[in-house]
Amino acid sequence: MTTAESLMRHALSLAAHGPAFGVNPQVGCVLVNAAGEIVAEGWHRGAGTPHAEVDALSKIPDATGLTAYVTLEPCNHTGRTGPCSVALHAAGVSRVLYSVSDPGDASSGGAAYLRSQGVSVEAGLLADEVSEFIHPWLTAARLGRPFVTVKWASSLDGRAAADDGTSQWITGTAARQRVHEQRSRADAIVVGTGTVIADDPSLTARGDGGELMEHQPIPVVIGERGLPEGSKLSRDPRGVIVTGSRDLAGILSELWDRDIRRIFVEGGPTLASAFIAAGLVDEYLVYLAPVVIGGSKTATTDVGVATMSDLGRLTITSVERLGEDLLVVARPIGE
Amino acid sequence: MTTAESLMRHALSLAAHGPAFGVNPQVGCVLVNAAGEIVAEGWHRGAGTPHAEVDALSKIPDATGLTAYVTLEPCNHTGRTGPCSVALHAAGVSRVLYSVSDPGDASSGGAAYLRSQGVSVEAGLLADEVSEFIHPWLTAARLGRPFVTVKWASSLDGRAAADDGTSQWITGTAARQRVHEQRSRADAIVVGTGTVIADDPSLTARGDGGELMEHQPIPVVIGERGLPEGSKLSRDPRGVIVTGSRDLAGILSELWDRDIRRIFVEGGPTLASAFIAAGLVDEYLVYLAPVVIGGSKTATTDVGVATMSDLGRLTITSVERLGEDLLVVARPIGE
Repeated sequence: MTTAESLMRHALSLAAHGPAFGVNPQVGCVLVNAAGEIVAEGWHRGAGTPHAEVDALSKIPDATGLTAYVTLEPCNHTGRTGPCSVALHAAGVSRVLYSVSDPGDASSGGAAYLRSQGVSVEAGLLADEVSEFIHPWLTAARLGRPFVTVKWASSLDGRAAADDGTSQWITGTAARQRVHEQRSRADAIVVGTGTVIADDPSLTARGDGGELMEHQPIPVVIGERGLPEGSKLSRDPRGVIVTGSRDLAGILSELWDRDIRRIFVEGGPTLASAFIAAGLVDEYLVYLAPVVIGGSKTATTDVGVATMSDLGRLTITSVERLGEDLLVVARPIGE
Repeated sequence: MTTAESLMRHALSLAAHGPAFGVNPQVGCVLVNAAGEIVAEGWHRGAGTPHAEVDALSKIPDATGLTAYVTLEPCNHTGRTGPCSVALHAAGVSRVLYSVSDPGDASSGGAAYLRSQGVSVEAGLLADEVSEFIHPWLTAARLGRPFVTVKWASSLDGRAAADDGTSQWITGTAARQRVHEQRSRADAIVVGTGTVIADDPSLTARGDGGELMEHQPIPVVIGERGLPEGSKLSRDPRGVIVTGSRDLAGILSELWDRDIRRIFVEGGPTLASAFIAAGLVDEYLVYLAPVVIGGSKTATTDVGVATMSDLGRLTITSVERLGEDLLVVARPIGE
């Protein structure tokens, strides 16, 4: 590993301190002197707070002649905070290395601005690792819609319940806790009205001890029926979004306009299958429990595949054992 | 690791040279002198050939005072070969260490015989590892019926085919090659008449290059209909067993009487589900391809589970990536 790589990897580790949800990506930055020593660190803590570069610059009185390692191209626009490109140059930073280019129409151009001001700029260091780390955010930015994760839990033979509808504890505690952690990384948690009527879920992200996690996704209910009176979601303090619609593309567009970038689709089978059939799934989280159930209660219904040549292939990005269960993560190939 | 353990582990590695199929288990033996040096090695090469102990004894002129490390209790009966207990004592072996007791009614008693002749005998060394290694054979011996492996290949959501019945190449070449290797470890490969009629399979175990493997399982066809005229299996030189029956327990009993100890159930969904519903599955091999198919062609049908409390829990014994696919191996808990 070269020194430059190790400095960028450190910036990436700082990025991980920030939140995975929200309109902005996780970004880390280190400022390094001519001797290759880190003199300041920064990371982004979420929308409305300083970007990673500004956070790092705030730690030191003078950045003249320093090199900045930052995981994303410095932004070039004034949103809730000013442009990082201007801040870096104004502080005297003479060289900027960044991993991944900013895909945003409004925010990109930071590298060009910096070069125009005589700052040395290099792109692409650790780009694969950083792209993978902020994959959901990059995908959402590229597609102009929220990143869609579909999750289901099933038996090894793909059943979400027994024929009588019972499904409690197909998966074990470790898998269920992981689901809560995944919920807390999303901006919104999406269910169909059928699931609300059948299960009356609370859709909160909770810790081991049942306590609410710090970040709670906004519940979104899809379907033409309204919320049942007296349902837990109807009393939810997070501001439930009841779409009154099944137009998934239209709903995603509305969610995007509300700064929602990651959604977690939890069920049921009809809703998950509708997202799949519409080609709107960016990530599959398939929890497999060591049981074989058979029967009619499949975890997916019709996903629009009539014959094998209709199939979109996925790639399995990870397989993990969680207690007695498995978590298989897959993505459409090419995403 | 103690020296005794390492000697037994060596015997286990010798056992692996023998065939996994057939009426006898894989057994290995080393003969060790007073200095702890291995002076002879042996293993069992299949029914009708010398047992591991006799194979090792045959390598040296005199075994007086030697210690035998053998992975299974020396047999005490005369089958196609003589009792190993007698052979070890007659050759002058003064001490025998074995891992796992022989569960057979006719063949057990070797330890007792040896002790009665003044030979020192110890059991249980590396018993967990050796039991796991010969798990199918031990299970068959305990249950008095062939060890039943059920295999299916499906999408991540448990479909074996698209709605129009197409299923070619759900899984990739690495997974398909592994299936051939698994076939070649079984005594019989079992399918339903429906599969024969629909797919006209050859059910051979073939290598990478399409060549027939050395050991071929016997095809067994289950169902009340006969073999279709002109089907590949009807011309098969291995001697296809056409049961003309759906009585699974009765069929397993007949196969046991033909010295069949491991069967590999390949399909289709109805047959696999019948074995599951009857509680006759000892091992599940679930190949999962990175696709989501939905629709009606599930890899299992009715397995006799009406409600969650009917479920038998399994334990996942291994998960392996094979090319783009996954192989999940599971067993009933307690087996």
